[in-house]
Formats: sequence, C-alpha cells, structure tokens
Amino acid sequence: MVEELERLVRVDSNRMERAGKPEAVFAESKSREEVIEAVKAILSSCGKALVTRAAKNIISEIEREFSDHVILKNERGRICAVFTEDAYDEFSKTKERGEVVILSAGTSDIPVAEEAAFTAEFLGLKVKKFYDVGVAGLHRLVEPVEYIRRSKAIAVIVVAGMEGALPSVVAGLVDRPVIAVPTSVGYGVAFNGLTALFSMLLSCPSGVAVVNIDNGFGAAVFAYTIFRAMSRLTSADRPARPG
Amino acid sequence: MVEELERLVRVDSNRMERAGKPEAVFAESKSREEVIEAVKAILSSCGKALVTRAAKNIISEIEREFSDHVILKNERGRICAVFTEDAYDEFSKTKERGEVVILSAGTSDIPVAEEAAFTAEFLGLKVKKFYDVGVAGLHRLVEPVEYIRRSKAIAVIVVAGMEGALPSVVAGLVDRPVIAVPTSVGYGVAFNGLTALFSMLLSCPSGVAVVNIDNGFGAAVFAYTIFRAMSRLTSADRPARPG
Amino acid sequence: MVEELERLVRVDSNRMERAGKPEAVFAESKSREEVIEAVKAILSSCGKALVTRAAKNIISEIEREFSDHVILKNERGRICAVFTEDAYDEFSKTKERGEVVILSAGTSDIPVAEEAAFTAEFLGLKVKKFYDVGVAGLHRLVEPVEYIRRSKAIAVIVVAGMEGALPSVVAGLVDRPVIAVPTSVGYGVAFNGLTALFSMLLSCPSGVAVVNIDNGFGAAVFAYTIFRAMSRLTSADRPARPG
Amino acid sequence: MVEELERLVRVDSNRMERAGKPEAVFAESKSREEVIEAVKAILSSCGKALVTRAAKNIISEIEREFSDHVILKNERGRICAVFTEDAYDEFSKTKERGEVVILSAGTSDIPVAEEAAFTAEFLGLKVKKFYDVGVAGLHRLVEPVEYIRRSKAIAVIVVAGMEGALPSVVAGLVDRPVIAVPTSVGYGVAFNGLTALFSMLLSCPSGVAVVNIDNGFGAAVFAYTIFRAMSRLTSADRPARPG
Amino acid sequence: MVEELERLVRVDSNRMERAGKPEAVFAESKSREEVIEAVKAILSSCGKALVTRAAKNIISEIEREFSDHVILKNERGRICAVFTEDAYDEFSKTKERGEVVILSAGTSDIPVAEEAAFTAEFLGLKVKKFYDVGVAGLHRLVEPVEYIRRSKAIAVIVVAGMEGALPSVVAGLVDRPVIAVPTSVGYGVAFNGLTALFSMLLSCPSGVAVVNIDNGFGAAVFAYTIFRAMSRLTSADRPARPG
Amino acid sequence: MVEELERLVRVDSNRMERAGKPEAVFAESKSREEVIEAVKAILSSCGKALVTRAAKNIISEIEREFSDHVILKNERGRICAVFTEDAYDEFSKTKERGEVVILSAGTSDIPVAEEAAFTAEFLGLKVKKFYDVGVAGLHRLVEPVEYIRRSKAIAVIVVAGMEGALPSVVAGLVDRPVIAVPTSVGYGVAFNGLTALFSMLLSCPSGVAVVNIDNGFGAAVFAYTIFRAMSRLTSADRPARPG
Amino acid sequence: MVEELERLVRVDSNRMERAGKPEAVFAESKSREEVIEAVKAILSSCGKALVTRAAKNIISEIEREFSDHVILKNERGRICAVFTEDAYDEFSKTKERGEVVILSAGTSDIPVAEEAAFTAEFLGLKVKKFYDVGVAGLHRLVEPVEYIRRSKAIAVIVVAGMEGALPSVVAGLVDRPVIAVPTSVGYGVAFNGLTALFSMLLSCPSGVAVVNIDNGFGAAVFAYTIFRAMSRLTSADRPARPG
Amino acid sequence: MVEELERLVRVDSNRMERAGKPEAVFAESKSREEVIEAVKAILSSCGKALVTRAAKNIISEIEREFSDHVILKNERGRICAVFTEDAYDEFSKTKERGEVVILSAGTSDIPVAEEAAFTAEFLGLKVKKFYDVGVAGLHRLVEPVEYIRRSKAIAVIVVAGMEGALPSVVAGLVDRPVIAVPTSVGYGVAFNGLTALFSMLLSCPSGVAVVNIDNGFGAAVFAYTIFRAMSRLTSADRPARPG
Repeated sequence: MVEELERLVRVDSNRMERAGKPEAVFAESKSREEVIEAVKAILSSCGKALVTRAAKNIISEIEREFSDHVILKNERGRICAVFTEDAYDEFSKTKERGEVVILSAGTSDIPVAEEAAFTAEFLGLKVKKFYDVGVAGLHRLVEPVEYIRRSKAIAVIVVAGMEGALPSVVAGLVDRPVIAVPTSVGYGVAFNGLTALFSMLLSCPSGVAVVNIDNGFGAAVFAYTIFRAMSRLTSADRPARPG
Repeated sequence: MVEELERLVRVDSNRMERAGKPEAVFAESKSREEVIEAVKAILSSCGKALVTRAAKNIISEIEREFSDHVILKNERGRICAVFTEDAYDEFSKTKERGEVVILSAGTSDIPVAEEAAFTAEFLGLKVKKFYDVGVAGLHRLVEPVEYIRRSKAIAVIVVAGMEGALPSVVAGLVDRPVIAVPTSVGYGVAFNGLTALFSMLLSCPSGVAVVNIDNGFGAAVFAYTIFRAMSRLTSADRPARPG
Repeated sequence: MVEELERLVRVDSNRMERAGKPEAVFAESKSREEVIEAVKAILSSCGKALVTRAAKNIISEIEREFSDHVILKNERGRICAVFTEDAYDEFSKTKERGEVVILSAGTSDIPVAEEAAFTAEFLGLKVKKFYDVGVAGLHRLVEPVEYIRRSKAIAVIVVAGMEGALPSVVAGLVDRPVIAVPTSVGYGVAFNGLTALFSMLLSCPSGVAVVNIDNGFGAAVFAYTIFRAMSRLTSADRPARPG
Repeated sequence: MVEELERLVRVDSNRMERAGKPEAVFAESKSREEVIEAVKAILSSCGKALVTRAAKNIISEIEREFSDHVILKNERGRICAVFTEDAYDEFSKTKERGEVVILSAGTSDIPVAEEAAFTAEFLGLKVKKFYDVGVAGLHRLVEPVEYIRRSKAIAVIVVAGMEGALPSVVAGLVDRPVIAVPTSVGYGVAFNGLTALFSMLLSCPSGVAVVNIDNGFGAAVFAYTIFRAMSRLTSADRPARPG
Repeated sequence: MVEELERLVRVDSNRMERAGKPEAVFAESKSREEVIEAVKAILSSCGKALVTRAAKNIISEIEREFSDHVILKNERGRICAVFTEDAYDEFSKTKERGEVVILSAGTSDIPVAEEAAFTAEFLGLKVKKFYDVGVAGLHRLVEPVEYIRRSKAIAVIVVAGMEGALPSVVAGLVDRPVIAVPTSVGYGVAFNGLTALFSMLLSCPSGVAVVNIDNGFGAAVFAYTIFRAMSRLTSADRPARPG
Repeated sequence: MVEELERLVRVDSNRMERAGKPEAVFAESKSREEVIEAVKAILSSCGKALVTRAAKNIISEIEREFSDHVILKNERGRICAVFTEDAYDEFSKTKERGEVVILSAGTSDIPVAEEAAFTAEFLGLKVKKFYDVGVAGLHRLVEPVEYIRRSKAIAVIVVAGMEGALPSVVAGLVDRPVIAVPTSVGYGVAFNGLTALFSMLLSCPSGVAVVNIDNGFGAAVFAYTIFRAMSRLTSADRPARPG
Repeated sequence: MVEELERLVRVDSNRMERAGKPEAVFAESKSREEVIEAVKAILSSCGKALVTRAAKNIISEIEREFSDHVILKNERGRICAVFTEDAYDEFSKTKERGEVVILSAGTSDIPVAEEAAFTAEFLGLKVKKFYDVGVAGLHRLVEPVEYIRRSKAIAVIVVAGMEGALPSVVAGLVDRPVIAVPTSVGYGVAFNGLTALFSMLLSCPSGVAVVNIDNGFGAAVFAYTIFRAMSRLTSADRPARPG
Repeated sequence: MVEELERLVRVDSNRMERAGKPEAVFAESKSREEVIEAVKAILSSCGKALVTRAAKNIISEIEREFSDHVILKNERGRICAVFTEDAYDEFSKTKERGEVVILSAGTSDIPVAEEAAFTAEFLGLKVKKFYDVGVAGLHRLVEPVEYIRRSKAIAVIVVAGMEGALPSVVAGLVDRPVIAVPTSVGYGVAFNGLTALFSMLLSCPSGVAVVNIDNGFGAAVFAYTIFRAMSRLTSADRPARPG
C-alpha cells in the first residue's frame, strides 16, 4: 500500500501545479508584516502572488515594498497582484483562454464582483461583466442572457446580496454552470449574507453551486478549475453540441 | 427595449432545451397522485422523467403505473427514471460523453452519492465511483486521487456528512472542479448537515463549490452544465494543456 | 383619562365586528374535543366558524358533529367552514366584493395557497388563482402578470417555499400590494420555510409584506383588512387613477 | 408563447410607472460618490429621488451637490428627497390622497417611524403620527385607536422594537391593515430586532403583515401600493361599508 | 476555612428541607421502570412525590403500582402526585397559605397552566385560574386584572405561546411579580416557544421573570419560594402597604 | 362589558402607582438630548428618575443639567438617579424594608450586579452583596449561603456570565427565590450571554427565574414586586415558618 | 519531499495500530445489513468490533448473526462488542491498565455514561462509576470527589444534560483531565444538548475538554489516547508527583 | 453525611494546589485597574500569575506596575506572566517534564497557538511547535506527524480556524490525545469560529476533544492535567507499551 501512497504524494513544489490553484494571501486578518512576508514567500516559489481583501493602505504598502515588481491592482475589488518581471512577461503573453461572464445584482455587490473578475484575469481567463442587473428590473437581464446564450462562456458567476434571487432566475434562462456568490450586503434578516447564501443553495432551477459569502476569489478559482478540466480533453473527447 | 426582451423569452417548449436542465420530480413532499401526475406531464413534453427522493413504495407505484414504459431505478439512491420507448432508444444510443468521478466519505453517505451517480448517467455522463474514502484513513484516498489525476474527468463530486472535511482534502490534491455535497449524516452538532455545509464552504483550498444538503441530484446537474459549456467550444477554443 | 379609555373599550361583542377579523380555530394543536367546543362557541356568537390546519379526520368529525349545519371544506387546504342556516344564507347572498389574486410557486405550496383562497372566499372576497408559476420558468409568469395589471385586484398573495424568490419578481412587475406567504416546503437549508421567509423580507423591490410561514389564513385576512379599509372611503376620498 | 411574454415586458422606462414603486437610494452601504451618482441617475429618469439611511454628513453632501434642486430632509429619520424644479412643482400640487396612521412604541423607535412618515409623504400620502404608545401603558393607546376607528386611514404602520407586542395589541382593536415594522432597538435577546420580527409574525390577531427590521421605507411603500390598488376601483367597485 | 464549609453542607436529608423545593420526577425522558423506581425512592425519604410530563399511560401505571397510596392527578396537565397515608393527612390538613393567580393566553396553553396549578396546590398554595385571556381581546383581561389588584396574590403566573405578549401587558397593569411561562405552542417562527421566551425576557414593563419553555412546574416552585421567603418575616419585618 | 373595562383602566397617573414599577430611562440607545428630555418628563410627574446604561459622559451631562437636583450615581454600574428635593427627602426617610442578597460570579459581572444593587436601593430595599463567588471555588460560597439561610432576605439575585452555573448551585442550597441575571461576559460560545441565559433557564434545582441578559435593573424591580406583594399581606395572611 | 511523505503513510493495516483507535460501527444511521456487513469487515481485519447506538433489535440481530462469536452487550448503553475466540482470549487476559472515573448527572444521562463505560472496558481500561451526582445536591459529590483525589485515575468523564454545570464544578475540585460529554437530555432551551455543550466549553475552571453531544464512545476513546500516551513514557520520563 | 462533605472541602488555599490549575487573569473584559488588582491578589497567594488576552498596552502597564518582578511575555500570543523572585527561581529550576506538540493551520491562527505554547511552558511543560500545516497541503503534515510518532508527547494541541479540518486529519494519523482549539479566523459562514468548533466535535476519527473558540490557554491547562494524572502513577501502574 505504501507504494500507492507514494504516488499520491509525488506532488510538485507549488500548489498551482499540484492542484491548479493560485497562491493568494487573504489580507484581512493579517498584519502588514504578515502580508509582506507571505507575498515574498509566494514570489520566491512561483513568481506571482495575489493579495485579496486588501484595504487601500495595505495595497499602498505592497506597492512601496515591491516597487521593483510589476503590480496590478483594483481598489474597489480590494485586490492586487505582484509579479516578478519574468512572471509578468509570461502572464502578459498568455492568450486569454476560456471566458467567464460575471453578473452582479446591486451597486454594493460590485466589490465582490470585481474581486472575482480580477482573480479570473490573473488566472488568464477572459471576463465579461454585467453589473446592476437585479431581479427588481427583469428587463435589465435581457442583454446579459442573450450574451451568454450566444457566447462560449464556460461559466457564469452571479454575485448578489439581500434575498439572493438572481442566480435562480439566471439558471432558469441559461445552460452554463452558474457559480453563485452571496454577498454580505443587506440589513436586518440579511444576516451578513446568510439569507442570500441559503436562498442560492435552494435555487429551484438546478445548475447552481455556491461559494462562501463575499468569496469572489473562490468563484473565479472554481471557474478556472472548469477551464483546467477542459484543457485535459482532446478533440476526440470534446462533446458534440447538445441537441 | 421590448424587442430585446422578446429575444430573451424566445424559449423552447421544455426546460432541457431552454436551460440545459432535466425535468425531475422531487417526490418527498408530494402525494402518490401528485408524483404520477407530474411524471405524466413531463413524459408528454420531453419523453423522459427523473423521480428523486422516492421511497420504495413510490418507486413500486411508478413501476405499476408506467408498466408500459422503460423504467430504470436505484433504490439505495431513492431514485428512478421513466422513459417512453423512443426516448429510451435515444438514451441508450448515447455514447457516454464527459466523465464525472464521485467520492463519498462514509457508508451512510452512499444514498446521496447514488442519487448523484444515477442522475449523471441519466444525463448521458460517464460515472466512476469511489466510496468510503473519508479523511479518517488518508491511505484510502490514494487510488481515487491517482485515478482523477490520470483521467479526463470534467468534475469531481464529493459527498460527505459529519465534519465534511473530505472536499477540502481532495481539492488540495487535484485540479478539477470539486462539487461538494454535504449530507444530513451525523448527530449532535452535525445539525442535519449544516456543519458539513459550512465546513465545505470554508474549504481552505479553493476550487470547491457547494450544493444544498443531500442534493446529489443538483450536483450531477451542475456537472452536466460543465459538460454543456464544453460542448460549445470548437477545437480552436479548446484550451491548451496547462503548463 | 378614564373617560378616554372607556371609549377605547366600547367594543362590540365579537371580534369580526370589533376588529374586522374572522373567528377561526387553529386545529393542529388541539384535540378533537377542543376543536368541536371552540366551533360551538363561535357559532353561538357569530354564526359562522372557520377551522384551519384540520387533518382529514378532524374535518370528518366536524361534518358528523355539525351535520345540521352547512359545511364547506377544502381537504387539500386542510380547512373547512361551518355555518348556521341563517349565516349561510347571508353569506351566499354576498356579492363578491374585492378581488384577490393568488400565485403559488410549486405543487407542494398548493395547500397553503388553498388555505388562503378558501379563507378569502369565506370573507366574501373574489379569488383568482395561478399555481405553479415559480421563477424557474419565467414565461409562466406572463399570464398572471398580465391578468393582475388589467384587473382591479386589491392585493396579490404570493405563496412560495424553497428560496422564496417569487414575491420579489412579482413585486418588480406589478403595482399592487404583494402579501408574501413563505411555506415550509424544501429541505436542507430551507429550514422549514425560514429561508423563504427571510428572502421575502429582503425583497429588493418594495411593496412586499410578509406573514408567518404557511399562514395562508393570515394572508387572506390581511387582504380582507385592505378591503375593509377601502369600504371606509366615499367616492370623494377615492384616489384618482395613478398616472 | 413569445407574444404573451412580449406583453409581459412592455414596461415603461422607470420603475414608478412599471410597478408603482419610488426610486430610492439605500445610502448605508454606499460611498459618497456612489450615492451622488445614483441620485443623478434617478433624477435624470424621473425627476425625484429618495435617499434612505443617510448619515448627517451624507445629507450635507447631497445638499451641497444638488444645491440647485429642491431638497427635503428629516435628519432623525436619516432620509432626504431631491427634486428637480418641475418634479417639486408637481409634488407640491398633489392633494394628499390616502391617509396612513403611524404608531411607534418607544423613543428609540422614532427614527424608523420618521423614515416611514417621510417616505409616505414623498409618495403623496397623508400621515398622522402617534409616538411613544408602547404596551407598558395601555392608556396611551386610547387616543390613537379612537383616531383610527373614526378615520378613513387605509393602513396603520406600527413600529416597535424589544418584544414587538404593539402590533398584536393594535390589530386586536382596529380593522385596518396593520403593517408591522420591527426595529433593532433592544439588547440581550432582542437580537437586533429579530425577536420583535418573529413576535410580530406570530401576532395572535390576524391582519398583520411584516416588513424587514428597521424598514420604515418599505412599510410606507407597501401602504402606497394599497393606495394604488384603491385607485383602480371605480365607484361601482367600491365596497359597501362593512356591517 | 473548613469549618465554614462544614456549616454550608449541614444539609437535611431531603431537598424539600434543604432548599425548599419539592422532589419531582420528570417522566418524559424516562422509561416506566425508571419513573416507578424514582417515585419509590422519593416516597421513602419524604412521603410525597410529584410526577410531571406524564403521559396518560404512565399515570395509569403509577395508579396500578401505588394502588395502596393516595394519588391525585390531572391528565390535561400531564401530572400526578403520590402520597403515603401520613403525608396525605398532613397535606390535606394544610390550610392554604399564599395565593397564586394563573393566567393563560390560548386553549393550547392550558396543559402548561394546569401543570403550574397542580404543582402550586401540591405545595400548599391557593390557586385562582383565568384561562383564554390572550392579547387579541383586551376586554377579557378586565376580570383577572381587577381580581389581582384586589387580591393578596403573592405572584401571577402568566402562560403564553405564539408571540408571548401577555406577560408584558399584564405586568403593565399589576404590581405583583409576574412569572412568565413561554409554551411551545405555535408554528413557523414560534420555534417551539423560543420566540415567546425571548419576547417575555424583553418585556417593556419590568417585574417579569421567566422560566424554561413549558415549565409550569418551575413557575409554581418559584412562586412557592416567594411564599417561603415571606414565611421568614415576622410582623415587625412586614412592609407597610405601599403608597 | 364596557363598565368592567372601565374599571380596568382606572389607572393612576404614573406607572409607579399603577403597576409598582419605577420610571427609568435606558440611556444606551438614546442621544444626550433624548435622555435629558426623558428625565425631565419623569421628574415632573413623579419627582425621581433612574437612568440606566449611562456612559460616564452621559452621567456628567446629567449632573450638569440637573445641578439643582439631588443626584446619586454609580459609575461602575453605569447608573444614576435624579431626585427633586422633596422626593429625595421622602426617599432618605424611607426605612429600608425588605432585604435582597446579590451574588456575582466574576469580576466582569460586577457592573451588572451594581446596576441591580443601585436600583434595589433606589426602590427602598436593603442590599447585601457578595461578589466573586463563582463555581470554580465552591468554598467561597460558604459565607453567602450561610448569610442567606440566617437572613430574612426576600430574594437572591445571582449574576453570572460564561457558563452561568452559579444560580443552579445556589438554588440547590437555599430556599429563597433566585432571580438569575445572565451577563454578556465571555467569548466564543458565550454568545454575549445567550449560553448563560439558557443554562440558567435549565437549572436543575427549581426556584430559579431569569431576566434578560445584563438586566440588573429588571432583576431588582422584580425583587421589588415581591416586596410589594408582601406588603399586601396582613399578619393573619402571613405564612407560618416552614417546617 | 516524497521520501518524507512515504514515511508518513507507512501505516499498518488497521486503524487500532495506526492511530490507537478502535474500529466501531455507528448503527443508528445504518440498515441491519449495513451493520452486519461492517462488523464482518472489522472482524476479518482485527478480530473485535464495537457496535454503538444499537437499538435492542439490532443487538438481537447481531447475536443471531454472530452466534459463534463471543458477544458482550449493554442494552441501556445501546452498545455491544463482537469478538473472535482468539481476540476474546487476548481481551480477557488483559490486565486492566489505566483507570477512568465516570460521573453522570441525572437518570436520563445514564445511557450515554454506559456507552462510555462499555467502550472504556472494551479498550482494556478499568472503570469506576458514580451516577446521579448532579449539582442540585452538592453533598452527593463528596464520595466521587474523594475517590478521584485518592485514585490514580488518568481521566474523569463527566456526563450531563440540561444546563451542563457538573463538569465545571468537578473541574474546580479535582486535578485530573475532565472529559465532558453533553447529552441531549432536557427540553425547551436545552436544544438537544447544545446548551449543555456550550456551557461545558465555557467552564470557568480550566481542565475541561468536550466531545460531541451524546458521544460517550468518543469520550472513552479520548481517555484511551491518554493511556496510550502514558505507555510511551519510561520510568525516567515519568513526572515526579506534583507538589 | 456532614463528615464526608467536610472531607470534600478540605481544600488547600490556592487553586493550583486544589485542582491543579494555574491562576490566570483574562484581561480582555477588564479595565487596567482590574487587571493590576487581580495580578496582585494572585501574586500574594501563589507567587506567579498569568495574564491572557492582554493587548500590547496592557502588557506595558503590567511591566511598569510590576517592574520589580520577573516578567515573561509573548505579544503575538497576547500573554504575559508575572513572577516574584522566589517563584521565578523555582520556575526556572523546573526540569521540563512532559512534552506537548502544538500544530496550527494558518498564519492567522498563530496567536492562539502561541497562547497555548506560552501557557504550557508556564506550567513547566516542554513545547514543540509546527505552524502553517493546514490540510490544503498535506505534504506539510509529514514532518509533524513523524515527529509525534517518534516522540513521547503526552498530547497534541491542534489549532485551526475556517473549516477546522486539521484535527480530524491529525487524529487519523497519530495515537495521542488531540486537543482541538477552534479559532475565530475566517469570514462568512466561519461565524467567528463556530463552524470550526462544530467541525472538530464531529471529527470522524475519535481521540479528539475540544475547548472553547480561541482558548489556547484552556488547551494547555488541559494538557497539564494529563501530565498531573501521569504524575500519580508509580512505575507499577505504568502501562506497558501498546502492541
């Protein structure tokens, strides 16, 4: 049995290779020093690091500390990425492969949607965004739904707080995987996103899966695993178009 | 704006076509009559119906009522499918396209895993199962992880109750989308699956998305939407193998 | 101050008169004897009694006990009404005044919708029902929405379990008061209707108010209070049609 | 079916017309810039905007930004309204149509009651307020109950925190629709208004419907939908006075 | 220090003497054998035992087993008492000392009220009951409130389920200690009595203290401790009548 | 029926007289202005006002505003009392009648215990305090238990946070009413006092009733209602000493 | 790194050896067939199997199925053990090593205490039981506390439901590890053991660790791991007696 | 019975002797003055005091106040210890007896792990730490698991937030007692550590017991009680090495 286990653990030296996931630093519960230290460790092993839930001043600190690196940032999404020169060269040469459509329900949900968008682009995916398309005005859904139907999008990320009804409605109209991201937007019985989370898990139309509250990063990584799975398929494996 | 909306609603006459989802009857909260009636309605519109959460006696009733149809069933998974002759012919000719790997943690989780497996096969997917691979004995994970790494699986469905730790561990070892299904197995602070659900949503490794407690059906449909998304891609769109 | 209070309490002898509410017996937590006794007490004071949450056998008991009365019943809605001859005569002569539209999302929500419908009719309101119009298939909403827009409905009662998204969507499309009734339909994180309840309270479009889980009776009585309020207005008070 | 759907979506260009609801900006979870931007968007489409949950400094910012508009405000209610000249002219000419009575239980509930009152007036309704009429001193209820009984009020909005018992008591004494607004006032097991919310949903007398915690705005809009429903009725439809 | 502790523990041999509490057997979670055994143990030490939460068949078993004892019972209150001849003689000679008034809100709350009443009488207290006096009909409160004001009641036990508003209203009208007993009566957000419990703890008028859900026994024992405390006072200690 | 109700409402002009409760201002959720205004209103009707949950600066404001009144304060208990000269004269002449013993478990529970003590003294009761007598060191309970047993205390107020076990232990050792006050002291699963609250409600020894979390004021008022009840008794009513 | 991992997984073929834990079958959520099958699998690998949460009829089935094995059982503890002849010989020759003291608070807690006791004996530990020693009667704690102080017990297992105060009190009196087991005994706010669980986690005296509700088995296994840890120590490692 | 109780209470004068627990001050909910006062009290009775949950400025205050004492501190662990000269001499002469291994999952869990480590060392135990060994990268577990297997560790303390899966995985690999400490690290459904807590209580492998959220101190004291229990054993009692 030992030999089999040995095969299990023959892992490569960084997680991106091992399990297809990016290395990221969740800045919110860390001190400035811990964030910097964590970024350095990741850079030395794989050349590019993502920092999520980064307050403005943390992003500034990172810019100062890594002034000789390439830094991309999105303050509304509270997120930034640090690259070594080499890693950035490789990154910028990447032809965008795999498209993800991101919908968000209200203005206050945008930071989480931006976190998802930034992460997806960091992972080399192409992103198309439609914001402010909540269920209160169904007519605003026309354009994104038409776009998705015509597109080759591999996944739709739907970001919503409050009653979290948008993923249900979208999943009833399109045939792609809907990755639902509840947000902590709302008051009273919104319970910091818990009602939206439960609502999404209960979506009447199937085809919806859910990530943690405010976890735009996780939704994007999940979309990326779909892209990874597709990359395993040869032409022969490729499914015929559904009838 | 009306014209755009008109395009939105140009939907086909059944849901499978419209949004890529199968028509299913959730039997648990319905009377015998309601189940039969619902199956008939679906058969008349699309020729094949899935019945989930069906107690043994409900499955027997269906077999009696639809004795002139083709019926497939899985009692452990509390699920059955009813086909018209034509629909079954088409179904049985379907070459299995797209593989899904299903892992479950404990013996008591198997009914939910079987629901997922049966649904996936009903949707034309190929299923590979590994049961009883909980985190208490990591060595049992070697075989499924090796299988997944070598396979072209488009998704991994991980079914677990109690502390729900299996999806975290699996997502740390493979690069495919992990669809986590919490089960209501457990006692005390298991809260009928709620702790497993929360635990899965908090998975440290990203690449995990979650469906409702005991919702094996929903996990399989979600996997199917991944398959549908792939079917949109031409060879040119197909991503190169990841580095 | 005493004189002012005296005026407060100058109440009529039964509740229908005092506060515009029907007398009803909630049968679920009562024994057969308690139900019979309660019905008798109400009949002797106001001539007609409603019995809600009545299991089949309780309805049979009532029919046996009050065989010399007029009894209306709806078993799916677990509800019946007992009238003295005089009260029934008066009831049947009532010209239906005030229309209520009742929508329900899924098959399993119908008992609660029927409870609302039966109660509304008991109160002399006119009822129009649209069942099985959940958000999974938006096209099914066309007919009820068009009906409501053209109608003079004084309120719309929307009954839904699971994620409870229907009231949000309806309230975004019509301008009448939406009385939302969450149902205990669902499993996992449905929490016996709690998620639907919270979801409805969080409805993005305003114009939604909510009653207790499964409380079809309460929704109908609330609609009746709207009718009562209208009956206070003379033509001069009547608002002009909104622009 | 497409033609029917087309009719569904023939919506007017702003929400007030489409579904009878005002356009409002929930300021609490938005930055100064987002609030200003949202107000501008609404003004350009319908000429008048409501801003709720606005801290003092946000109201000041609005006053500065829209100094050439007409601004009404209520700091205790954390709410203000911005009108273009034309919209304000039309607003001020509106004869108050439809009266709403607003009761609140304690001093700390007043901000939520004021939000409801301001919103109702913004919508052209007439408002009568009775504050500090909690159940601890029943004698204080005499005046408001007498007023309601004699009035033509179309709805009663009852605002209460702590144990939230006031709506139950009021609904037992009057025959108008009681719109209950739980507030987050209280400590310990008040759970930021959750106990009041549940208490109100459980009101023994029927005729109570509930909105989200602290949602005075929503209560007023709901009252307005009652007014809208009445406006559909012609004299012939008008119910006779209840017996 | 040891000597001081020694004094602490100089307890008498049964609990009634030590801390003024009766010995009771909570039958619900016990087998028939365990109940019988527990009753025997208590009888041998103090001559009289109370059995609470006793289903009809458990009471029958007790009657059979202790046929040579004196047994008092109240099936609606699911409670009975077993006395040795001597203990019963002493009990029946007790002049009722200390009056307790018991109010209950709805029919379904009566079993809990009866448990309180039976326990209080078992402890030698005098009991006056007013049932079915919920807040939905304030006029029904007149008689009990007048009675309490005129009486020398040492405590008022108020039993209510649903929204649990009765103790608040009563405490606003009388100056005696109000012992509130929430019941598990209700559905939906009643949460088996939890909302009533929280509502009672939040009572705006002070002078209310609360016991566990459905704990009529505990309320009566608490009233008895008040009686015990009074028994310590000599005439000199007795407070003058309040102004 | 009206005449009976009239008698119900023949209430005196302030609450102290009507229902034996003091008028108090809960300062925490009120602005400085609201507190001052509320104190003035109470002073004008009954001459003495209690202010609870008052931060240091609020107490200072009160001292400044009411510099020509008599003010008593306890900063640790976040409480103060304002008297007119006449009211204070009457208050200071009151012979302490009725003793209450107050126990608290930990240092952090003292503010709540002090709130109870201050309130009790404001109401003319005599107070004996034992602090820091948690269950971790049972020997510290010797002195207070001996004291209570020998005393004529009419009630014992027990204040505890964390696991809230102290009331159970005390109620097992004394025969007086135990009024349990859970505090919000603790972390993790203390849930701001909720676990202590539930623990106290579940006390194995009977004779415990509970008030809201941190509600020292309410506990003292409840003790005062016991005192009021005693004051109704004449010598003839006074119970004999228990056996 | 692979070589290091290889060492990690060099596990023995059954769990008892690998991690010092017994193989047990949790019967409650399994069918008769699943239990039998699981027992067989364990017997074939390690010769002895424990079955927990086994209803009477399941134990009977096991006795019938494994009639040629040695079976030990405890019906009150809902537990049994199946041994091959060889395994039983070895088991019965085991000299009891390591003593565990088990305390339980109430009669209803005994089944869980018995599960712990049976499991501990199955693991070769010596067990001393003290039942019915709840905090309501502190004097009953004298004997067990004295026993523990004089004994060489390696751990104390304390089983309690309701308010769960016993572990706190015990941990304040003894210096051994207290393994607290909350039980689902209680009603109302006992929440099936949750309050006891939280109460135990909040124990003021340290030295308490907690297992899942009703998990007597887990407590015993935890005690066994303490025994295993001691077995690693040589005399030289053995700590001197504490001062 | 009194004599037996007397023996129970023959306790030594400080808690360390009585029940083997250190005296510690939980600084978080105390004022500067209360902390200083508490430390002084402990020093005067037993010469050494631990202060937990101490913010930086509180530690500074202690250093200033007790500048003539020996002070050890760990700011990351928010903990410090104050010794009299004599107590420190004795402490520093203590040969480390009993080893505890501490694992933590993420960077943000380190403060809690450090609190445990510092406490353990204060109690004379030897500590070995492995940080950042979460389940996302199983290969990082190799070193600590190997270390534990070879060591004579008497307990393993495992600190983790988020999904709290680490204790399950560790307990499946080692045979020592696993003391699990959930931390409040995480967001969304982490609920300040509650999900981790429940997850740990549900650990599939047995041999895990849990302390309160963030309670590193409690985990270390529990480990110390294991050490105390071992110290009672003579060589003869010492268990043989397990097979």
